Formats: sequence, structure tokens, C-alpha cells
Amino acid sequence: MAEAEAPTTRAGRPRIDRAARRAAAAPGGGGTAGTAGAGRKIPYFDLLDEAGLQRIERQANRLLEQVGLEFRDDAEALRIWRAAGAEVAGVRVRLPGGLARRLCALAPERFVQHARNPARSVTIGGPNTVFAPAYGSPFVRCLEQGRRYGTLADFENFVKLAWRLPWLHHSGGTVCEPCDQPVNKRHLDMLYAHLRWSDKPFLGSITALERAEDTIEMARLAFGAGFLEAHCVVLGNVNVNSPLMYDKVATEAMRVYAAANQGILVVPFILGGAMGPVTTAGALAQALAEAMAGVAFCQAVRPGAPVVLGSFLSSMSLRSGAPTFGMPEPVLSNYAVGQLARRLRLPLRCGGALTASKIPDAQAAYESADSLHSTVLGGANYVLHAAGWLESGLTMGYEKLVLDADRLGAMQVLLKGFPTDDNGLAVEAYDEVAPGGHFLGCSHTLANYETAFYDARLSDSESVEQWEEQGSKDAATRALARWKALLADYEPPPIDPGVDEALRDFVARRKAAVPDAWH
Amino acid sequence: MAEAEAPTTRAGRPRIDRAARRAAAAPGGGGTAGTAGAGRKIPYFDLLDEAGLQRIERQANRLLEQVGLEFRDDAEALRIWRAAGAEVAGVRVRLPGGLARRLCALAPERFVQHARNPARSVTIGGPNTVFAPAYGSPFVRCLEQGRRYGTLADFENFVKLAWRLPWLHHSGGTVCEPCDQPVNKRHLDMLYAHLRWSDKPFLGSITALERAEDTIEMARLAFGAGFLEAHCVVLGNVNVNSPLMYDKVATEAMRVYAAANQGILVVPFILGGAMGPVTTAGALAQALAEAMAGVAFCQAVRPGAPVVLGSFLSSMSLRSGAPTFGMPEPVLSNYAVGQLARRLRLPLRCGGALTASKIPDAQAAYESADSLHSTVLGGANYVLHAAGWLESGLTMGYEKLVLDADRLGAMQVLLKGFPTDDNGLAVEAYDEVAPGGHFLGCSHTLANYETAFYDARLSDSESVEQWEEQGSKDAATRALARWKALLADYEPPPIDPGVDEALRDFVARRKAAVPDAWH
Repeated sequence: MAEAEAPTTRAGRPRIDRAARRAAAAPGGGGTAGTAGAGRKIPYFDLLDEAGLQRIERQANRLLEQVGLEFRDDAEALRIWRAAGAEVAGVRVRLPGGLARRLCALAPERFVQHARNPARSVTIGGPNTVFAPAYGSPFVRCLEQGRRYGTLADFENFVKLAWRLPWLHHSGGTVCEPCDQPVNKRHLDMLYAHLRWSDKPFLGSITALERAEDTIEMARLAFGAGFLEAHCVVLGNVNVNSPLMYDKVATEAMRVYAAANQGILVVPFILGGAMGPVTTAGALAQALAEAMAGVAFCQAVRPGAPVVLGSFLSSMSLRSGAPTFGMPEPVLSNYAVGQLARRLRLPLRCGGALTASKIPDAQAAYESADSLHSTVLGGANYVLHAAGWLESGLTMGYEKLVLDADRLGAMQVLLKGFPTDDNGLAVEAYDEVAPGGHFLGCSHTLANYETAFYDARLSDSESVEQWEEQGSKDAATRALARWKALLADYEPPPIDPGVDEALRDFVARRKAAVPDAWH
Repeated sequence: MAEAEAPTTRAGRPRIDRAARRAAAAPGGGGTAGTAGAGRKIPYFDLLDEAGLQRIERQANRLLEQVGLEFRDDAEALRIWRAAGAEVAGVRVRLPGGLARRLCALAPERFVQHARNPARSVTIGGPNTVFAPAYGSPFVRCLEQGRRYGTLADFENFVKLAWRLPWLHHSGGTVCEPCDQPVNKRHLDMLYAHLRWSDKPFLGSITALERAEDTIEMARLAFGAGFLEAHCVVLGNVNVNSPLMYDKVATEAMRVYAAANQGILVVPFILGGAMGPVTTAGALAQALAEAMAGVAFCQAVRPGAPVVLGSFLSSMSLRSGAPTFGMPEPVLSNYAVGQLARRLRLPLRCGGALTASKIPDAQAAYESADSLHSTVLGGANYVLHAAGWLESGLTMGYEKLVLDADRLGAMQVLLKGFPTDDNGLAVEAYDEVAPGGHFLGCSHTLANYETAFYDARLSDSESVEQWEEQGSKDAATRALARWKALLADYEPPPIDPGVDEALRDFVARRKAAVPDAWH
């Protein structure tokens, strides 16, 4: 089983014992003791001042208390709201007198999502950052086959790739839509794939009540019913129907997950000027109100249930009206929403490596990098769409996945900062190296060389002559070779045969119980 | 004369009066009153705490006071140092008792570099950010002709492109090496091109004493001798010969520029593990010491002469030993050096849109974006290499230039932040838009639509079908069409015929005075 790959060494360069480096690069190496994920040692970038934050919070309060939100087609949700003290008029729910904030305060500031392999469990919240692949695209794209509908085979490939890529801590959820499977049964295949072909934590299904229930059932089979009752083992990602509306798909999933003490990410997706205000502060205030309402709802279902406050803001092309990504307005919103989430003491999901580009070209990378940089500095705790996203989310890219993952490694080094102790300052090196000399062979360089710099596997820093000799390959072409190699020598993580049998049996029984549905 | 281009409008989309937008997008629109450049309204990202900053400053002091720097082959430089109170032993110069800091305190915290067109003058320092194209590459690259030695025709093309691109405030200096011109005369062609084909501020020659003097002479012809004596009209970019060494090329240029009250950027270029420590804090401390020594030297030449503190740190590939760019270690250094420069109250040059990639592919864009994001958030005041840089600086790219410039626009929007007033919060929009509604036609959207979002010209956000109809072009291919169009309808800015005549005459006389030299 070849997992986190080590950098190669060239002849003629210093040989380095890479054991320590490999350990640091392993998926479990960076987070809070006992869990994977990137442990932050640098400050947050705090964009807004206190007055600006308070103005956004006051506007969010106005929306929650005076305008209210609609909760449609779910009488049970309205019953839960009434019992929690909300004002319910028809389907309009208002949360007076700081009710939303009081309910949000019941949620944990951080929690552990347990993985099938305990070394891959992740802490979500606090100083931790967890990266997950992109989610929800009906199409996939690779250099050899171009753009096409995703299949279950693609889905399994992405699960395997995310498992092998050391900088992804999480298996994600609908890494692509397996469009060759019936709509009402594909969630079973997706859940099995996450549980069987990976041992990283994952997202479950939320697209219908019974699919959410199947998710919890399969998690019970994999983790044990008792363990699940006391521990978060699965998360569900729920989108608000912005502006200010929850449909029953969302509330049913929240009810099922929260009741089972499993985690919910509540994520408004606001295309500014369409589902929310065209101005960044307004979109942020609405997103805050909407996400707080969802978090509060989960707490009304079960106080203390793990939740993540989400924000997903997009800008719009003035030329076409189409959504745009990686632009400065959502970048700014990532910085601001980090501050807002920390003031609520809630874990945050925002941003990702987002782009409107159709292919993994320079546009894709510029947009993804600015989006991701702000996601990380702003303080997101759970980053969905951290790798693979193309075409405004319509397409999952094979090459994009491994290219983005390479930059996730860079972001994890960034999160560590650098030491300013005497070794970091190289105080003694100047006893050895005189003005006009060089540091190549000095003791300080030899002692620190192997841990000094991030090794970006897909970045080519060779001379142009070497690069031409190797075929003048662009980054996407190198990425093609990389993901194919990762799949070629993939070997699945071990699983208890009894658990595997139980999961397979559950999937078979649920599939047999109802006819296929294709829409 | 078509200059800052306005976004196109598609049929069927809201028609927008673009006058205000165009004004905001014009090169003179963003900086401090009366000058061009991006005026910052957001905080800096302060990476290090007080203790960390002090440890780096103490190490820099140790290098300045105890280790010292060598100033080679320039007896006049050593004389200046002795007169300023330095300890000079052979060519080793030590600056005891805080001498460097006292001299640095004589430099202006910010200054105006005047442009031939006063509307394009830039303030360097304080809350301003000035973007300039890449500098110094012997090679150029475009999609049609590939990689080749730069020529004077290429040089003039890049000057014209930088002049037309609204997000570049500065014409730069050696935008590429005009390798078809004699080494000892090409600076005359470069200076003439900056003064004739652009009216933005520019960098002069520093590669030899007489070339620095020619720079000042030509600037006198263009601006008037009296104006030049009282105003900064040209900057020179000087590299330290790290570690801790200045050669006479550097000190002679500093002497000529500072004596004429013109600006000097003092920039250590440290490849960690070669010209400085492999650890970030150590490289930063050395860069700080080296740059402070250069700033102090300029102040010893002429107190109050405009200077910019520089830092240019690069990491190294563990696989090949080659320099790498856009990696997390130099990204972190950009954040830290911003803090160090502000504590010295000196303008800062650092970072840029840097990459080791040979072509404008995803690697180039990821690396350039992370490098630039940190450059901007960290607080660089003058950003050389903000557009065009490829292949670790060996190549200037036509497509890369316009692609990077597009992102510079995004960075300038980022620097503005966003308002949190009632309009920004869209307080009244919710009287019009109910939960589950949409904002597309509401008054708030119509009132704010045209200024809401950055228009990234080279980002394609169309549907995949539209994109395919237009030829499935990647960003680099779109960039090719863009720079060719910018050159095709370029018309030079006006110039006083007498000034033009005087410049041409000076160039002709100086070229005739000595034979061509080719190395």
C-alpha cells in the first residue's frame, strides 16, 4: 500500500533521510493531538473593525427577528420552532429577542468527526483546518476523455484519490454525481464507496429524508450504534434556499442528523444580486442570519448537536450575469465571515479552491489560489471544494484535484508559520559564512535543509532545457500522469470483513426494496 | 487613443452607464489624492507577534554591528561610510550603536515619484501600492513565437502594453533585456522607450556608473534640471550581493541616484540555503540588515533621499536545488517583512507575481497568485514583477503580462475592502424582496449593480457551451488575443517635440561617443 508519497532524490544532490519529513507530511501529522487536519499557528487576518462587525450582526439580527425566514413543507420543523420559542406565522418564522444567538450558543465550539481509521479523525473548529474535495458536480473532466457525465466509477476514483492525497483530510461527499446510478439509490453506492475505499471521514446524503436515514444506518453499521450515539461519525452539508428560505429537504436532513447527534454544515449559497444583495456586507449579513437560523434549528432539535456555520458567496459577471469565482468580493467575504464565526464561537465552512474556468488552466489556478488563500487566512475550519472544482461547480476535474491538492500542502505549511528562535534566525551560521560567501554547505543549512521548504510535487522548477527534454509538459499534463499513477498503485485500506458484509447487505436490501427512479 | 478599456455589454443584459466605472478603473483613480496607485483601506496581515519581530530585529542588528558587510571595489563608498561614523576595516563595514537605524530614520516615510504625465505620478509608501511589470529577463515568450532572446522591439512592446494596462501604475525598468542592442548602449534605448512610449513613471539604469549618470541626464532633459533637483522622477533598483556584500555596481548607482535626490530600491535577493540561511527567519533578518545598510548608505550620501526597503526571498526545490517561487516560505516572509518595514517607517518593495513555470499554465498562476496575495496583504508599497514574470525571472511573457495584470485589478479591489453602511448592508432591500424571492430586479441591485463586482476581463464565466462555441480557448490563448489587440490600436501619449528632440539627440550623441560592446 503506497500512500503519502515521498519526494524523489536526484543523483548528485544531498541525500536526505526522509523519515521525519514523511511523518510530518502524513495525513495525521498536522492537527490537534490525536486528529488529522492542519493545526494553525498563525493569526487570522481580521479585515473588519469592531464597528463594521457589529453593523453586520445588527443587520443579521434584523433579518432573524423582524423579517424572518420561511420554512416550507415541513410541519414538524414549524412545531420544533414553536416549541423553541419562535414566532411562527404560516411558514414564516421569526426568532425574537436574540433567540437564534441563544440557541447557537448551545452548539459545540469544536468537535471531532471520527473516521473509520482513528488516526484520520479530524477536529472541526478552533485552530484546525480540514480540507475536503469538491462536491456535487454532475460532470467530470480529464485530459484524456474531456468532459462527460460522472459515473460511479468516477466517484470511486475520486474517493480513492482523495484517500491517497496526503493534504486532503476528508473524503468529502458527492465528489461527483454517479449519474449512471438511479437517483433514488446512488446515495447507497456513494456511502459504501466512502466507507470501503477510504478510511478518512466523509459527508453523508441529505437529498431526501430516507437517504439521510440510510446514511445514519450505514454509519451505525460501520461504527457501531453505541459509538455513533456518543460520537460524530458523519456530517451532512445542507444548503439554504436563499434568500431566507429553508425547504423540507434541508430541514428533514437537519432533523435526522441532529437527532442522531451527527454533524450538519449549514451553508447559504448566495450569488450576489440574485439570491441576496449585490453588496458584500449585505450578502454577508444575510448569510449570517440564514446560517444562524439553521444552526439554531439543529440545536432546537438536539442541544449540543455538532454544527458548522457556513457561508458561500459568489460574485457575478457584469458582462454575462453568470456567477464568477475567485474574485475579490467573495475573497473579502471569506476574511469577514471568519471574524463573524469566531465571535459566535462556531466552526466555519467557507470558500474553497473555486473557479469558473472550464479547464485547469491559468484562470482556474489564479481564481482557485486567491479563493483558497483567503479561505485559509480567514480561518475556515472545514473547507469543502478544496480540490477538484471546475466550471463554477458543474465539473469535477481529475487534473484539477491533484493540482489543487498540491497547493493545499502549501497552505498547511503557511498555517504553521515559522520559528524565530536562534536556529530559525541562523545566529551561528555567520560564524561559518562570511560576507560574500555561501550557505550551501554550512552546518545550519545541512541541519535544516530537509524541513526547510515545501516540496510542491506538481511545480516544475527545472531549467527550461530539462523541461523541454521532458516534453515541455504543462502543469495539467503532469497532473494527468500523477492521478493515473495514484490510481494505478492504489490498494484499499483494510476493513473488518463483518462490517463490509453488513454494509453490502444493507445496500443490497435497500436497493431491492424499491424500483429504480431516474429523476 | 484607446487606453483603459471598458467592459463590453451583451445584448439582453442591463445597460449600464459605464462612465463612473471607467473613471474608477483609470490608472489615476485609486491612489492618494493626486497620484495613481492603489490606495489601501484594509488592514495589513500582521503575521508575527512583537517578540518575534524583536528577535528578527536583534539578529539584523547583530549582523550590522558585529558581523558587518563588505563594500567592494569602491573607495568612495568606504569614504562615505567612514564619514558617516561606520567602522571600516579593509572592505568590511560595521555600523555600531544603532547607526544604520539612525541613518534609516532620515529617509522619507513616503514620497512621490513624478511621471511625465502628472496624472500618473505615484506615491510610494504609506497606504499606497504601486504595481510595475517584471524586470530583467533576457528571454521573452509568447504563444506564437515561443521562447527567444528579447529584442528592443519586445522591450518597446512591453512598455506600450504596461502603459495601456490600467492596473499597472508603473512602466518598470528592464522589462526585458533588448539583447539585439549593444550592452553598453541599450540602456539609452530603454530610457528613451520609457520616456517616449509611456507617460507612466519608470526605473532607470543601474548597471554601470555612466549608465546611471545617463539616466539622470535623460531625466533632466525630460523633466527639467530644476524640477529633478527638487522632485523624484526616476527610481533605480539595486540588488545586494548577498550575503552581506555590496559590489561597486550597486554603490555607484546608489551614489549617483541619491546624490541627484532620485529614488533607490535596495533589494537583497536571497535564495534560502545559498545566499542566506535556509530558514525563513534567518533569511529575513539578513535581508533586513542588508537592505537597512543600503538605505543607510543612501542617507549618508544625501540625507532625505528617497529610498525603498526591499526583500526578495526565494525557496529551493529539495529535488533539484533550483529556486522555487510562490511557495509558502516566501509567502510568509512577505507578511513578516511588511511588519518590519512599517516599524522602520520605510516604503517596502517585496514579492510580485512570481513563478518557476516556463509557460502561463496552472502552475504559473497558482504560484503567482499566492505570491501576489501575500505581497498585497503584507503591505508592499512598490511591487516589481507584478506582471509578466515566468521561469524564475529568466523570461518575460506576453500572455503572462496581461493575465497577471487582470489579477492586479482584483487585488486593487481587495485593497479597498467594502462598506458596511446601510446601503452596503442592503437594509431596505428586504422591504422589496421576501424570503424565497430574488434580488435581480430590486432597487438596491439596480442602484449598486455596476460597481458591485470586479470585471476580470480574461476570466471566462460563460457556459461550457458558449465557451466551446468560441473555440474552447484556455486563458493563455485569450491573453494572446488581448495583448495583440492592445498593441494593434496603441497610440503613443503626447510629448513636447522639443523634449523628444533633446532626448533623441542625447541618445545619438552618447551612442556615437564609444564603440559598441557586446558583453
